[in-house]
Amino acid sequence: MTKGTDTRDAILDIALAKASQVGLGALSIGELAKEAGMSKSGLFAHFESKENLQLEVMKAAAQRFVERIVTPALRVPRGEPRVRALFEGWFRWAKDSKLPGGCLFIAAATELDDQPGPLRDYLVGSQRDWLAAFAQAAKIAVDEKHFRNDLDTEKFARRVYSIILAYHHFSRLLHMTDAEAQARSEFDALLAESRA
Amino acid sequence: MTKGTDTRDAILDIALAKASQVGLGALSIGELAKEAGMSKSGLFAHFESKENLQLEVMKAAAQRFVERIVTPALRVPRGEPRVRALFEGWFRWAKDSKLPGGCLFIAAATELDDQPGPLRDYLVGSQRDWLAAFAQAAKIAVDEKHFRNDLDTEKFARRVYSIILAYHHFSRLLHMTDAEAQARSEFDALLAESRA
Repeated sequence: MTKGTDTRDAILDIALAKASQVGLGALSIGELAKEAGMSKSGLFAHFESKENLQLEVMKAAAQRFVERIVTPALRVPRGEPRVRALFEGWFRWAKDSKLPGGCLFIAAATELDDQPGPLRDYLVGSQRDWLAAFAQAAKIAVDEKHFRNDLDTEKFARRVYSIILAYHHFSRLLHMTDAEAQARSEFDALLAESRA
Repeated sequence: MTKGTDTRDAILDIALAKASQVGLGALSIGELAKEAGMSKSGLFAHFESKENLQLEVMKAAAQRFVERIVTPALRVPRGEPRVRALFEGWFRWAKDSKLPGGCLFIAAATELDDQPGPLRDYLVGSQRDWLAAFAQAAKIAVDEKHFRNDLDTEKFARRVYSIILAYHHFSRLLHMTDAEAQARSEFDALLAESRA
């Protein structure tokens, strides 16, 4: 890894933490430069434009999500255990200390839904990939006969998504202390109705 | 109604539509003045500060929500019919043409969750009120013996909330054409498990 890559990664770490709190739109190259202890022109040299910085932040988030959640889950046995590993990983992600403002994708969803362009396109693509990966894990659980044959695996993935969205809302905005317990119990109920 | 109130309401209509799309933080008194055909100083006379404008926009949204969703539902028979009326009203709200960017509260939730202050406090208060109102409607359905005696009505309200959150996400960001059908079928399933 070159020094340039290190610097870039360090800046993306700071930007990611910031964006999770203030939103992608409120990221400022000037403030970021200050926090990274760099000149504004130095930061421009790395990212060229604010829009490109935002896109790189989202790409970095997606890459970390795959590294920390998806790849480790692929080492867990196929079927229900892997489905559960993905769910647990998602929780870890939503509570990751490197994302003090919570999941960047959930925050970006309401920020970008009315803003056509490359940022929104990237977010939509990564959300679709993630739903498809979760549905695929459920499909394997059907093949392994852990889940019932007629399970609609895409709906299953969307229901898990709605559990996580609600957890994010109730814990981050409303500070409900039982938000995680409720999310877990809903996930368990969903597993129970999905089993063969 | 005085002319001042009319003007104020007209500005709030425009601001509400705008905030649903770009977020409360991106509301600008200057741009709003242009859209309302007023001078910037005229708009300042009405709202005094950007933060106050944001707060007034949120209060206007909450007031309209009560007028359009909650009050009409109170005229529907107590019990399951009223619970359903609240759910249907919520859908209408999320699709209201006066909110081209969707539900302002859902958008504000991720925008404000990390921003302590009067705006966040107001949002949290109104969200808690709404959850309590929904739980109360479910409680009445228990009293009317439409729903089972041991139903946790607060969890019921939160589950409905998660259905609406997911609907908002899947329809507004991912443009899934069956998002509404899935939300309705999940709500029907929730009613079925809640019945006495």
